[in-house]
Amino acid sequence: METTLSDSPKTAYGLAIHGGAGAPSHSTAEEKLAYHAKLKESLDAGYDVLQKGGAATDAVIAAVIILEDAGLFDAGKGSDLNAEGACEMDACVMDGRTMSAGSVTGLQHVKNPIVLARAVMDKTQHVMLMGEGAEKFARALGFEMVPNSYFQTERRRKQWQQLRDGKLPPSENPREAPGSEEGFGTVGCVALDAKGNLVAGTSTGGIVNKMPGRVGDSPIIGAGTYANNRTCAVSGTGQGEFFIRGVFAHNVSALMDYKGLALLEAAGQALNDVARFGGRGGCIAIDRHGNVTMPFNTAAMFRAFRMSDGRGAIEAPAIANEIKPSR
Amino acid sequence: METTLSDSPKTAYGLAIHGGAGAPSHSTAEEKLAYHAKLKESLDAGYDVLQKGGAATDAVIAAVIILEDAGLFDAGKGSDLNAEGACEMDACVMDGRTMSAGSVTGLQHVKNPIVLARAVMDKTQHVMLMGEGAEKFARALGFEMVPNSYFQTERRRKQWQQLRDGKLPPSENPREAPGSEEGFGTVGCVALDAKGNLVAGTSTGGIVNKMPGRVGDSPIIGAGTYANNRTCAVSGTGQGEFFIRGVFAHNVSALMDYKGLALLEAAGQALNDVARFGGRGGCIAIDRHGNVTMPFNTAAMFRAFRMSDGRGAIEAPAIANEIKPSR
Repeated sequence: METTLSDSPKTAYGLAIHGGAGAPSHSTAEEKLAYHAKLKESLDAGYDVLQKGGAATDAVIAAVIILEDAGLFDAGKGSDLNAEGACEMDACVMDGRTMSAGSVTGLQHVKNPIVLARAVMDKTQHVMLMGEGAEKFARALGFEMVPNSYFQTERRRKQWQQLRDGKLPPSENPREAPGSEEGFGTVGCVALDAKGNLVAGTSTGGIVNKMPGRVGDSPIIGAGTYANNRTCAVSGTGQGEFFIRGVFAHNVSALMDYKGLALLEAAGQALNDVARFGGRGGCIAIDRHGNVTMPFNTAAMFRAFRMSDGRGAIEAPAIANEIKPSR
Repeated sequence: METTLSDSPKTAYGLAIHGGAGAPSHSTAEEKLAYHAKLKESLDAGYDVLQKGGAATDAVIAAVIILEDAGLFDAGKGSDLNAEGACEMDACVMDGRTMSAGSVTGLQHVKNPIVLARAVMDKTQHVMLMGEGAEKFARALGFEMVPNSYFQTERRRKQWQQLRDGKLPPSENPREAPGSEEGFGTVGCVALDAKGNLVAGTSTGGIVNKMPGRVGDSPIIGAGTYANNRTCAVSGTGQGEFFIRGVFAHNVSALMDYKGLALLEAAGQALNDVARFGGRGGCIAIDRHGNVTMPFNTAAMFRAFRMSDGRGAIEAPAIANEIKPSR
């Protein structure tokens, strides 16, 4: 397990993002550069909001939209295909100041699931909407709706077909070789704004060849996404079922709140708790002091962070030798 | 807030059930007796399993099925109607020994949602299935499917229609008078078997006139349902959105695990945390020593428990003067 701890003065603001724990095993050199560039674009978009004095919620949404639109990650365009060959997407956002949250699951036509999650938080009395009901709500709000084929990239469809045909080499089959973890690629963002507010957001297409209707950890408050100004904001990625059973993201917060652990230790212990019953993955987390940790127990993780005091890094694991900490 | 604490020798086994926090405001005397009788029937069915040395999971399922079939509670037959006049049901079960869980949301045709939740736990690699995907899985397993009208009782439809027409007196409108809480009625069961295993299960039709696709706390691991042999089993009921945001059930466990609180204090504090941002409801919880607590902060709560050392009570709030502790 690798962790990153950063101490900071209390005035720091900033954000962290992830593009999933795992690593694509067949990236071309061009793809590798594309991953790095998209992480930077997402990070900059979120940071720009914060730098202008904007709210953490706006920063998280801005950062995640770019990852959803990229076609590179398992979220929005580029989502994994389910057992029926369709993309079904989940997303969630939680505001650590108000402890309000919005979550959507089972979307097939909403171009940017994270934006709909925010609308559930801002415009309804509910926290979570699923499937057709969620999409009806999106249509009523005039959201951009797209055919499911929009989300299905050639690479994901090919990988899905090979898995279905039993032709995917075991080393690349996420079911048989967790180290390959081709299927991971959930995206997320956690941010601390200049007012000291913490927000977490996560968006995903779930796992390849999942049963139709499968809900992962990303849209579950306390599992894949959680924020609480008293403690931290967390966005997880990995084998969702284990993160749900471990109530992962809330566990990080509870370990800080009730045991007095620092962010680094809390995230590490919560990840170990999930690993104890076999779960693999990682998370990004930020606390109200601007400390950041991004641990994972998989082969690698797409991750990046940027803080107002100059700390920062972008890590696209396929180009690990090109890691460029900003200082 | 009212709480019930029971100390017990470590050898005790038993269970607690609830039929929701809130109270029907227009029950006839016959209805009141019917509620009491159903709670007893459910309690006895679960207890019978445990007494024969059966597993807590089997006890929970046996108890909840009876409440789902009763036509009296907001779960299975008798579920509240959503904004489109349909019943959409959620259910969840979690095993505290293996920390495995099964959850379903947005069901419209599965007669016993709790049984499907268990099938998700036992027969899939997933934890949670939603909507059409969940029902396809049920059909593939040969589950009993019923038309949605099966779930819609005359009383619930009338209440829904009055709410829609603006004819429900404010005192009986759950949106305007939280004290009336006609809309509550989620059911659940927590059990400790003779082997020391803890299991929690919850089933619900959600809240009246909810948006289609709304997911409440009941099917969310850590919110409305949680079990962990190290700490406790919890099933919540009430204004689900608040219980999700408070990650209620896992919070009870975390307060025991990390702060060393006893079950009574942990459940009380977690309920207070939810109440702090306006949430009303209650829960049943049991720990590995056989302690039971059933706090609520609403007008009343249908609740009952029975332990092998003779402790027990059945409380149907409309007949509060007939509370009959078994000793």
